[in-house]
Amino acid sequence: MYQKQLRERIQRLQSVLCIGLDGVYEKLPASIKADPNPLWRFNQNLIEATHDLACCYKANFAFYIYRGEEGVTALGKTIRAAHAVDVPVILDVKWGDIGHTAEYYAKAAFEAFYADAVTLNPYMGEESIAPFRDYDDRGCYVLCFTSNASRRDLQTRKLASDTNGDSEPMYRLVADKIKKWNKNGNLGAVAGATAPEELAEIRETLGPDISILCPGVGVQGGDLEEVLFAGDARSGNLVINVSRAIINASAGADFAEAARREAEMFVDQSKTFFNQPIEDQED
Amino acid sequence: MYQKQLRERIQRLQSVLCIGLDGVYEKLPASIKADPNPLWRFNQNLIEATHDLACCYKANFAFYIYRGEEGVTALGKTIRAAHAVDVPVILDVKWGDIGHTAEYYAKAAFEAFYADAVTLNPYMGEESIAPFRDYDDRGCYVLCFTSNASRRDLQTRKLASDTNGDSEPMYRLVADKIKKWNKNGNLGAVAGATAPEELAEIRETLGPDISILCPGVGVQGGDLEEVLFAGDARSGNLVINVSRAIINASAGADFAEAARREAEMFVDQSKTFFNQPIEDQED
Repeated sequence: MYQKQLRERIQRLQSVLCIGLDGVYEKLPASIKADPNPLWRFNQNLIEATHDLACCYKANFAFYIYRGEEGVTALGKTIRAAHAVDVPVILDVKWGDIGHTAEYYAKAAFEAFYADAVTLNPYMGEESIAPFRDYDDRGCYVLCFTSNASRRDLQTRKLASDTNGDSEPMYRLVADKIKKWNKNGNLGAVAGATAPEELAEIRETLGPDISILCPGVGVQGGDLEEVLFAGDARSGNLVINVSRAIINASAGADFAEAARREAEMFVDQSKTFFNQPIEDQED
Repeated sequence: MYQKQLRERIQRLQSVLCIGLDGVYEKLPASIKADPNPLWRFNQNLIEATHDLACCYKANFAFYIYRGEEGVTALGKTIRAAHAVDVPVILDVKWGDIGHTAEYYAKAAFEAFYADAVTLNPYMGEESIAPFRDYDDRGCYVLCFTSNASRRDLQTRKLASDTNGDSEPMYRLVADKIKKWNKNGNLGAVAGATAPEELAEIRETLGPDISILCPGVGVQGGDLEEVLFAGDARSGNLVINVSRAIINASAGADFAEAARREAEMFVDQSKTFFNQPIEDQED
């Protein structure tokens, strides 16, 4: 079961690090470009170098599907390689469609690619989440408050006051929905690292038991310590994704070693937080 | 250019019919199940039988990707076959991601699969639309008001009043955004056939020049005449998608002929509307 496996890894490795295996084909190191499937070879090397540091991996579908069949092959092999070393993989697809169609998307994620978890988009409502949720041994992270600037177009829009006169932003409604939709205990939320205040608010709404996937540390600029605190890393239900800052740490043949060094630095930094007495964090 | 080609076909064929090539692998007719790639063979037969009736085709990505590499191959071949008979294809993916990632999704849709248009999800804002919009010879339909029941979870939620005291639902904000984001004249909206009143409202907000893709006629229950009127079919900027009612008209070896008969019926029915004097429609 995904949630349990993830929590155990987080505790055992003392690591909330999710490594995003999102290599851009054109920018892969020359040393592996000669391989029949460089995307897969790149990931294989990264997994070998970092599997004892990452609580999970995340693969963003975009970086695979734009390479057509070759990318689909690379994605399948990558997930199998991660499983071979017991690391779960989040397939970052942000899918959302009508129920009939979502059934086949769920089959794609969980039966064709064997992903352990997916990311989903809430715009089309519960019906678009349900077929994924039905796989109760897998996880579903529903987009709540994303890490990008133009989230402000919709996600921060205030809704009309309810009967109590309270007016909440859109992303708060989504957090409430995630809690309500979590009938099989396998839903989580995506909340960006670039907005620690909102992340803290979302954690408060969800409570400590719902997993939060937090992208945006690294190239996107989110601050690690703030995020560990705001997302309540001590709950064991926070994972922080870092992609480019780790996988592109070196553009040369030493990319895997460089990635390991970055991952180690991240884990060391976050361990400090884990080992701090709780009262120190409240400052 | 997609929008121009589509409008010309709509006028010339007097057809607003978009056929959804969304065959479910397990349910394909036995007569083609022996083919090395049945999904592709199914579509090839459908395209041969209906290309003079459809203003465009739509392929929902779910029904391809759950078959892995085989599905990706079928999708590529399907789009090429439609192009060989000059019919544009909408790739129905409902993607939406941060800008850096959306660039690669746009490459996937437009350079790997050669789609003429895509469907996109607005939840992450303009940044997630922009890389697709940059391909100004292609089209982008942004989800506005979808055809499924659980659209009510988010899309119909009322927003807080603006400075004029007006309170609008979420989908109206999205319609406004589509109009504002339409910098290259290639954005459109998805508005479901199952809600003609909201469809009319969205058409009013967008004006007659922005293309609306309208799913939900057929199995989902939308009424054709209501939709033609509400979406202003006479503008030449409305396309109505029908998938299952056409492609599954027969489960036997005559599936393509049966699909043609259904498509003909649809086009005849909608032609009546096109040829009616405008005053008759106002009743």
